[in-house]
Amino acid sequence: MTIDFRQAEKELISAGVRLDHLGLAPATSGNYSIRLNDKEIAVTVSGNHKGKLKSGDFLRVDMDGKALEDKKPSAETLLHCQIYKCYEKAHAILHTHSVAGTVLTRFFADKDFITLKGYEMLKIYPGNTMNTHDISVHIPVFDNTQDMVELASRVDIVLEERPDLSVYLIRGHGLYAWGETIEQAEYITEATEMMLRCELETLKLKGAMR
Amino acid sequence: MTIDFRQAEKELISAGVRLDHLGLAPATSGNYSIRLNDKEIAVTVSGNHKGKLKSGDFLRVDMDGKALEDKKPSAETLLHCQIYKCYEKAHAILHTHSVAGTVLTRFFADKDFITLKGYEMLKIYPGNTMNTHDISVHIPVFDNTQDMVELASRVDIVLEERPDLSVYLIRGHGLYAWGETIEQAEYITEATEMMLRCELETLKLKGAMR
Amino acid sequence: MTIDFRQAEKELISAGVRLDHLGLAPATSGNYSIRLNDKEIAVTVSGNHKGKLKSGDFLRVDMDGKALEDKKPSAETLLHCQIYKCYEKAHAILHTHSVAGTVLTRFFADKDFITLKGYEMLKIYPGNTMNTHDISVHIPVFDNTQDMVELASRVDIVLEERPDLSVYLIRGHGLYAWGETIEQAEYITEATEMMLRCELETLKLKGAMR
Amino acid sequence: MTIDFRQAEKELISAGVRLDHLGLAPATSGNYSIRLNDKEIAVTVSGNHKGKLKSGDFLRVDMDGKALEDKKPSAETLLHCQIYKCYEKAHAILHTHSVAGTVLTRFFADKDFITLKGYEMLKIYPGNTMNTHDISVHIPVFDNTQDMVELASRVDIVLEERPDLSVYLIRGHGLYAWGETIEQAEYITEATEMMLRCELETLKLKGAMR
Repeated sequence: MTIDFRQAEKELISAGVRLDHLGLAPATSGNYSIRLNDKEIAVTVSGNHKGKLKSGDFLRVDMDGKALEDKKPSAETLLHCQIYKCYEKAHAILHTHSVAGTVLTRFFADKDFITLKGYEMLKIYPGNTMNTHDISVHIPVFDNTQDMVELASRVDIVLEERPDLSVYLIRGHGLYAWGETIEQAEYITEATEMMLRCELETLKLKGAMR
Repeated sequence: MTIDFRQAEKELISAGVRLDHLGLAPATSGNYSIRLNDKEIAVTVSGNHKGKLKSGDFLRVDMDGKALEDKKPSAETLLHCQIYKCYEKAHAILHTHSVAGTVLTRFFADKDFITLKGYEMLKIYPGNTMNTHDISVHIPVFDNTQDMVELASRVDIVLEERPDLSVYLIRGHGLYAWGETIEQAEYITEATEMMLRCELETLKLKGAMR
Repeated sequence: MTIDFRQAEKELISAGVRLDHLGLAPATSGNYSIRLNDKEIAVTVSGNHKGKLKSGDFLRVDMDGKALEDKKPSAETLLHCQIYKCYEKAHAILHTHSVAGTVLTRFFADKDFITLKGYEMLKIYPGNTMNTHDISVHIPVFDNTQDMVELASRVDIVLEERPDLSVYLIRGHGLYAWGETIEQAEYITEATEMMLRCELETLKLKGAMR
Repeated sequence: MTIDFRQAEKELISAGVRLDHLGLAPATSGNYSIRLNDKEIAVTVSGNHKGKLKSGDFLRVDMDGKALEDKKPSAETLLHCQIYKCYEKAHAILHTHSVAGTVLTRFFADKDFITLKGYEMLKIYPGNTMNTHDISVHIPVFDNTQDMVELASRVDIVLEERPDLSVYLIRGHGLYAWGETIEQAEYITEATEMMLRCELETLKLKGAMR
């Protein structure tokens, strides 16, 4: 499966409008990419608002994150490359920031995963081969850093163990979600964020009703 | 009352845009239908985002949920058929997913109903024959399953006892709402979700102020 | 000051779009009016969604709420008439439903007012003659009923004592706000609802941090 | 860097639409400005809704806040002038009102700062010279008053000590944020408000889980 750079731009622009509308792209946060072919990825350049992306706000990088044109890729491009290498089926990646994800990963500062269990929405995950709500999904949570090489090395260990995965969280930072298409990546993002909001509300309710 | 398939598509597309705008259609969740005539129902096909429906994302099924064309109906089509059979007046059904409904039905894991009492918004329910806020409405909550036949059999028992009903909830899953028109089904959905948010906030407040 | 019926329709339609966008017009809730002249009021007819009003969804009533054409006015038209009679300066009234207002008035089931104190936003109230944030505004809260005559009689006692007032609440129901123009009524609605959300969050925070 | 008055109007109108969409401009709250050149500032006139600004809703003032045309500037124009004087790089200022900022500054009534720590979003602040999430940012909180001269004198003491600053809060009132461009000011506003919402949710969660 290959996709044209202009088409990738269009799809990523549209995803940004949607994610911003959902409150998942505050300020210049987030970065998005599409796998163009075996050797190239289209990724957002650094520093723009993802709800107002336009043609030209993207560049080609190779599978190691090296810019193939004279623009500065998002700082976290390496994490995108890593996902494409680990998951042959991944063709689009969305990285978003949300209140629920930020609050939960910071609050449980020692936990290296968040467990989602018993939600109908869990059916969104393609790794859920039983296609049922009645499972536990452990979303990995990685401590944040500005050292992408170091972070990637920690992420690598987990990705290798989890061929089923389609999301992970970075603590106090945000969500990475990937899919076979940009639509699937977007649906996985929406569903995951909805369940994280449910978790946050449930915890407050548990405290209140104790 | 009969309605043309194209008109039904238009009305369901419009309902999806609205429900998505209200945050009630995350990812590919939900399914919507309209009763076309005595023998046919128009229902959403499986797997699309309900905020971006277009002509062609619907199919005709018979009153037993059997597809009348070569498309895959939503998994829960059987539940739609059941409602149309039980409630002669029902001509449109909307099934939505929300944070408040998901959190409340999961939190009260053993309760098979949620009671709404004393809300002005209760006047939205046509079964509220006294047309007053000063009543208690018990919304049935069914445990979730992927076995639609089994779920339908449990739902059936309750629907038969409740000719007044226009909504029910599935635990950790979502809301079913129906009306004589798509507008009425949509208003009942909006009003119910608003009261569920009130319930959630009230519980947190009660805990906080104890 | 007089205003043409068509112009009043336009302004009320536009207010409805705005209030719906703010989540203050769920389902068919709310009703809006404009004083046309000394003897007539334009008010929403009963039962429409206020976010989708169109020309024809309004009618003229006299100052006692009697319909001047063959349409059914909102059930609460009497409350509009009462406000126009008590407040000579009032030329537009908006009645909205919100989660915060509903939750707070129900939670404090015995309190007949909600006090807002120390908010910069309090400057929105024209009765705040010192034009300062540093005051206490007591918003009356009336118990809900479907008997408009009885409700109006209780409201009357308070309105007569409070020439400064531009809002009141009905318990488990919603907000009435009025102004010299539709814009002012809308701003007072927005500001009041924002402060009610602040009150709700503050109460939860107080409980949590106790 | 100079900017044309008409261009400044366009940029401020657009910022208002965005901030209103984010719920940061309820009623007529807030005021916005752009530094036109060494001697003039374009600032919103008093009393309009910031989500519906149009050409003509702005005026030129000098660096002391004196109106250069026959319109009434926002009451807080003096605070804008002060920021432009203290921060040579500041070319745009946005003042907004939010639930989270209002609730937090009121709840911690004795604290003269709010500390944000460990958020990836902290990278938005240009004063964060290490460009890292792993810092503590102390946002000053000033007690509210209607006496702008007195408030400005208190603000002045802090601004002089904090050349790194790009935001401050006024208690029970709102946020001031500034940047080298209107885009940067807007991003800083969005990011700060997102972190304040995180703080509010975290506090409730801490209380609930205690």
